[in-house]
Amino acid sequence: MIESGDELTRTSRDAQDRLQRQAASREDVISFAGGLPDPALFPKRELTRAFLEALAPHDAAALQYGWPEGSARLRELVARRLAERGARVEAERVLITSGAQQALSLALKACLAPGDRVGVDPETYPGALHALSRHGAVATLMHAAARAYYAMPALSNPRGQTLGEAERRRLMAQAEAHDAFVLEDDAYAETCFAAVPPPLVATHPERVFHIGTFSKTLCPGLRVGFLVPPTHQVHRCLEHKQDDDLQANGLAQALVERYLAEADYDAHLARSRRRYQRRAGKLARAVKRHLPAFRFSEPRGGFSIWLESELPIDESRLLELAVAHGVSFDGGNQFRLAPAGLSLRLSYSSVPEREIEPGVERLARAVRAALRAD
Amino acid sequence: MIESGDELTRTSRDAQDRLQRQAASREDVISFAGGLPDPALFPKRELTRAFLEALAPHDAAALQYGWPEGSARLRELVARRLAERGARVEAERVLITSGAQQALSLALKACLAPGDRVGVDPETYPGALHALSRHGAVATLMHAAARAYYAMPALSNPRGQTLGEAERRRLMAQAEAHDAFVLEDDAYAETCFAAVPPPLVATHPERVFHIGTFSKTLCPGLRVGFLVPPTHQVHRCLEHKQDDDLQANGLAQALVERYLAEADYDAHLARSRRRYQRRAGKLARAVKRHLPAFRFSEPRGGFSIWLESELPIDESRLLELAVAHGVSFDGGNQFRLAPAGLSLRLSYSSVPEREIEPGVERLARAVRAALRAD
Repeated sequence: MIESGDELTRTSRDAQDRLQRQAASREDVISFAGGLPDPALFPKRELTRAFLEALAPHDAAALQYGWPEGSARLRELVARRLAERGARVEAERVLITSGAQQALSLALKACLAPGDRVGVDPETYPGALHALSRHGAVATLMHAAARAYYAMPALSNPRGQTLGEAERRRLMAQAEAHDAFVLEDDAYAETCFAAVPPPLVATHPERVFHIGTFSKTLCPGLRVGFLVPPTHQVHRCLEHKQDDDLQANGLAQALVERYLAEADYDAHLARSRRRYQRRAGKLARAVKRHLPAFRFSEPRGGFSIWLESELPIDESRLLELAVAHGVSFDGGNQFRLAPAGLSLRLSYSSVPEREIEPGVERLARAVRAALRAD
Repeated sequence: MIESGDELTRTSRDAQDRLQRQAASREDVISFAGGLPDPALFPKRELTRAFLEALAPHDAAALQYGWPEGSARLRELVARRLAERGARVEAERVLITSGAQQALSLALKACLAPGDRVGVDPETYPGALHALSRHGAVATLMHAAARAYYAMPALSNPRGQTLGEAERRRLMAQAEAHDAFVLEDDAYAETCFAAVPPPLVATHPERVFHIGTFSKTLCPGLRVGFLVPPTHQVHRCLEHKQDDDLQANGLAQALVERYLAEADYDAHLARSRRRYQRRAGKLARAVKRHLPAFRFSEPRGGFSIWLESELPIDESRLLELAVAHGVSFDGGNQFRLAPAGLSLRLSYSSVPEREIEPGVERLARAVRAALRAD
């Protein structure tokens, strides 16, 4: 992590960035920002075993150059997990990427031309909004005609909700009607507190770019994600991958591959969900108690609760006050196409249970301070 | 590695790709293809120590999300090594990338508009040619007017030569004259058999995008490279990085960072150079003996020798025959702007010494077979 005074590399896209970096470097700040997985859940022991195994062979292939599409074994394991959720995709269609962000970026490069419209939810993943704008696409609301629709059917970020059966059908019918692609961001699917829904790629394999990652469920630092494009788009995506960075990290692929083959991933997922669900419940109760002027829906999974309020408080000003009060959050406007009323995303995923209520109390004090100041 | 029958993900860009994949999967083929570092030089012991250290802290930050610009400590270590070569760049200008390919790709995205001309050597790195064409740039020969010049001054690929003092001055004068950027690909610099030359960024920090990597000297599977853009381009490059894949691999960064801080990297480099130089000498002697119809210059470093010949043999046909004779190489035309006469790149870097002469003998037999067949 770099010092907050680092002018050259500070991203300007987010005026709150500097403040978040300051907060991140302070031990005394309870951070509801960032949407980080709980590091206590990182399977260090299994990854260490996988590391030693991967380095044992004489040729240490995990450290050598690999193929741009990724490790054959890992692609098979990903395909097998998708098959268990009802999506029978050939392993040859799975491209291993540097995280879900690269999977999304490759999909956009393959299927969009500058000026194309892409439908998104009213609140959505900021990394997708940035990538869309980078590719010259015009983000528009979901119901409009578009060349592609970016959706998180299994579990949405920041709202933490699951698309109902009727909404799924409506989305796919709309995509069919406009002959549009669906960019299915499945990053949070395996964090669903209840059953993980089948992915859209199960029923519409030639219309969906399916985007997945192990960042939420194993660890983000490995940067192992995957893209399952429609058959006729695999080649284009692969060429973009090669031109962008040749191949995904060989060592990280070897670790994930061995982890999936040898460890009990499903037991790990179950344990993770229980922990996150407990924290979600604790945060929801604390918000009800201390922030009654904010409304929210209980999340169905994921890492966060999305709060909205009619209070006449500027989001950036609130963040400034919050950090002064020893708590941080993600301002809601970065999740939106255009700025709107006060909203915040509070991530419970990496906050120890005992800090959740004190964190919300600090936030409530910051809200009162903001109201006094205005 | 995937089977050669994998139609979906085979790259079409190179007609020889399928053959190379077949050859790569066969134990009995002596491979002069690919330009791979010798896996026996991968510092497994030091990387294992670094891995255990990186995973020890409670928060295991190497496995968590990190900043898009990369680890502060690694950026400092890279800046320090550049300073030792005479280039005093601030650590804040160093962006950690997923290998040199991503560093190049980010530089192109930052400084080129579609249709821009970019000067390249008559033979150059194929990944650069592909990336240029992907970004809508027009590759042209080095002496022409251009928006940018792509060069490998310290050690060129595939020729393995070092730019002389006069040529360096000419290149920079030309860049100044056209107000063009220089994309300095320094990937092979540390493999120079003699002294490593100072990088161009030392004297022209605001005109040069400096591209480096640990792929040639530590191991490629970690995908740790770096980009040092001109000051006013750092921000743009960082935004592209973030939109493309958020951040470089945290674990790999932690390994390289610890390796550089704790191991004797310079001793490792010296040992690697000695090994590669010995193999280069052995290959050069074998080529003189068995392939007298091919001319070449002795390499000054790097992984390969570049051969050219007037023999009336089709390159793809020769590769086919070579693989049938149990040897493979990289066809020369992929290194060129436009196809020309017979040329091959023979990489000695990952071929055990005792296999070098037998490999060249097999190649000589394949050449004779090709001449008979024509």
